[in-house]
Amino acid sequence: MTLERGVRGELQRILGAANVLLDPAQLLTYSYDATPGAPRCPPEAVLLPEDTAQVAAVVGLAARTRTPLVARGAGTGMTGGARAIRGGWVLSTQRLNRILRIDLDNLQAVVQPGVVLKHFQEAVEDQGLFYPVDPQSLEACTLGGNLAENAGGPRAVKYGVTRQYVLALEAVLADGEIARFGARTLKSVAGYDMLSLLVGSEGTLGVITEATLRLLPAPAARGTLLACFETLEGAAAAVGATLRAGIVPAAIEFLDHASLGAVEAVEPLGLPPGVAAVLVLEVDGSAPEVERQAGAVRAVMAAAGASRVELAASEAEAERLWRARRALGPSLARIAPHKLNEDIVVPIVRLPEAVAGVHRIATEARVACACFGHLGDGNIHVNILVHPEDAGEMARAGQAVRATFELAVALGGSISGEHGIGTAKQPFLGLELGPRAMAAMRAVKAALDPLDILNPGKIFPVQDQAEVPPR
Amino acid sequence: MTLERGVRGELQRILGAANVLLDPAQLLTYSYDATPGAPRCPPEAVLLPEDTAQVAAVVGLAARTRTPLVARGAGTGMTGGARAIRGGWVLSTQRLNRILRIDLDNLQAVVQPGVVLKHFQEAVEDQGLFYPVDPQSLEACTLGGNLAENAGGPRAVKYGVTRQYVLALEAVLADGEIARFGARTLKSVAGYDMLSLLVGSEGTLGVITEATLRLLPAPAARGTLLACFETLEGAAAAVGATLRAGIVPAAIEFLDHASLGAVEAVEPLGLPPGVAAVLVLEVDGSAPEVERQAGAVRAVMAAAGASRVELAASEAEAERLWRARRALGPSLARIAPHKLNEDIVVPIVRLPEAVAGVHRIATEARVACACFGHLGDGNIHVNILVHPEDAGEMARAGQAVRATFELAVALGGSISGEHGIGTAKQPFLGLELGPRAMAAMRAVKAALDPLDILNPGKIFPVQDQAEVPPR
Repeated sequence: MTLERGVRGELQRILGAANVLLDPAQLLTYSYDATPGAPRCPPEAVLLPEDTAQVAAVVGLAARTRTPLVARGAGTGMTGGARAIRGGWVLSTQRLNRILRIDLDNLQAVVQPGVVLKHFQEAVEDQGLFYPVDPQSLEACTLGGNLAENAGGPRAVKYGVTRQYVLALEAVLADGEIARFGARTLKSVAGYDMLSLLVGSEGTLGVITEATLRLLPAPAARGTLLACFETLEGAAAAVGATLRAGIVPAAIEFLDHASLGAVEAVEPLGLPPGVAAVLVLEVDGSAPEVERQAGAVRAVMAAAGASRVELAASEAEAERLWRARRALGPSLARIAPHKLNEDIVVPIVRLPEAVAGVHRIATEARVACACFGHLGDGNIHVNILVHPEDAGEMARAGQAVRATFELAVALGGSISGEHGIGTAKQPFLGLELGPRAMAAMRAVKAALDPLDILNPGKIFPVQDQAEVPPR
Repeated sequence: MTLERGVRGELQRILGAANVLLDPAQLLTYSYDATPGAPRCPPEAVLLPEDTAQVAAVVGLAARTRTPLVARGAGTGMTGGARAIRGGWVLSTQRLNRILRIDLDNLQAVVQPGVVLKHFQEAVEDQGLFYPVDPQSLEACTLGGNLAENAGGPRAVKYGVTRQYVLALEAVLADGEIARFGARTLKSVAGYDMLSLLVGSEGTLGVITEATLRLLPAPAARGTLLACFETLEGAAAAVGATLRAGIVPAAIEFLDHASLGAVEAVEPLGLPPGVAAVLVLEVDGSAPEVERQAGAVRAVMAAAGASRVELAASEAEAERLWRARRALGPSLARIAPHKLNEDIVVPIVRLPEAVAGVHRIATEARVACACFGHLGDGNIHVNILVHPEDAGEMARAGQAVRATFELAVALGGSISGEHGIGTAKQPFLGLELGPRAMAAMRAVKAALDPLDILNPGKIFPVQDQAEVPPR
């Protein structure tokens, strides 16, 4: 499908010809995201607005012409959400990339959505402040993408996820009008919390054009520990004991036996024999508090049966302890060229059951699997290692994925901790949400985007067309 | 309007006759809340369900009979939200008052909405845990009311408000069906954040029947400080300096000159001369961390020009320092029998302008006024002291209230930090929200409650009937 000439002219008038990409080679680079195996979907045009007024004009035109519109950051999403699966336009935020203000007095920043997270963190740290959200993709992903997906990361156990840092939003709604939600204050209860609704809505309810984010004072010091356990149950119990002891580490990462095996084959860590799980913990705060907490964590780990506990004495030491976690990606790539990375969440105490269950599922499906992730908040990254050219293996992996989601829900958890639903998890959303809850969400979508132009076909299962509002 | 016989029989069948209150004297006790000057609105019936199924049956019957239904906790609300302004039924949560589980391993509790906050806090503290939300009404208010209003309190500066502690909700939606939102995990991004939407929606989108709340480990120690300043600007600057120094106190309360004067007349505090503002600060954490933070706060206060800084050496000392804050209510009552308590919020640095502006407004309107509140998050409780029998004074007070809200919005703040909108702030919501933002909220209300039976006539201004969805 190509762009009708009058509409093309209108887009070029709004944005300038240079900011309406139409060349097929260019369109191809906006046709995919970081989701393994998701088909490429080249849009009819890629639009590069530079301010809110241009976004509003573009969305207004999309509404008048009933054109699907997909807002896109850096395309690092893991569930296919940034792909134009129904054609139409991709609105890239790449030119909306300014940090408009860092407000030291109120501990706030005002940003455009196209700012790269890492750049923002560095700008904030230069002022002695701290923005804790830290998804793995932080060097590339944008704040707009973080907002759309409600991004988390290792530090969520102590600091929470993106939504907790959003004080106010400016967004272009589905009719092309601009609305502001929230206030530049820590508290406000004036009307519904549309702000939390927009965050995590994957671009289906509005296009965020500006955000006021809350900042924290930077912690003066950090401490890193590594603890080895002979059972995963032991590691999970140690996490519960840590939290109950009044210590909330900034990060509690774990690697299971399979992950450790993969790492060991590439970069031997010299772990003691019989290690089934490793925890990497970070504490932060004032220097004396870090020392106290690190000592307390070490004692809790030992009391919980850790076979070894190491405390980093220096920055270089800390880097060495994080090495196992960092070596994981390349290590797994040696086993299989691709992986399906599914981020389930379970209550912390159910974690051993979840990991054991995932491995049982993988064994039955005859696929290789490794689990790691954010133990502090129960978020397990289940990596199923696959060779895409092996159709039989891919089919078995698909079965394993479904069984993994069923397990997460059965254990009282969620099918997605931080990756969103997009298209990749659409078929499974009904495992977690009851029909009435999903109908309420669909009603909100229909109320706020009655023409279904904003990132259509995402999040909600599409098989039941009767429930989809007419276009 | 009395209850049609068939409907009454149906309610009695659902709830048992004893749990359908119809006696006018009983109805009168459910006709008001804690809002000064709000007219009494006796409902046609008060309903006392004891489980979710009964709530669902009652809401289903309300939907079939197009009867307005107002869910009500303890009636401690300050904006008129729990009154049955369009008649119909009040659904009291008083029998839904069980703490269903306190889960030490996952640091969570599962509660019914009728649990009194204070009882919940005590039950949680008995287990060494901590639920930090602390509105002034905590001895009477219920968790359901806290959820409906997104309650805050002094500790919000460090610990946030109710919404940040809600992991999962069960709610009866407007058609009488039961839906569950969220997960019993710290993270989940499966679909829209309906949970945050329900929290703070003042009973207009659903009746919450169960909540899973996040708990924290109890801080081991607390420290209390009092700091005196010769200007409010100095006090506000000291707060900014504290936060930038990496210290986030658990509470930063302030009293302005007029509040101090009222207290001094009742219970002399022995303040040094020339004090225009007092800060009461609380720090919490491990014992050594409290000591360190208290020392650091003392140094920051002194450097910021405090004329006196006292640190409580004991629990009794701390109580003495809090006395000024606690004495405020009775002190103000000596000046005038009633007060309009409006809780505006402004960015911290705008606080001196806000307080000066409020006093200018009060002087011009010839009404007495005192400001105090939660300086750490910019939340000012503006108390306009009135004699309800003086119609002229009441009219001037009303003008002062409007001007106060206009000022809050002009300073980049909000008309409500924690009291909600209800009926009392309806006429002013449009000062803060743009028309498109408000239309989006109304669209959500119409989508989720198309018959407009759940607490109808609240939050949104009613003068513009054209915007109200047809009933």
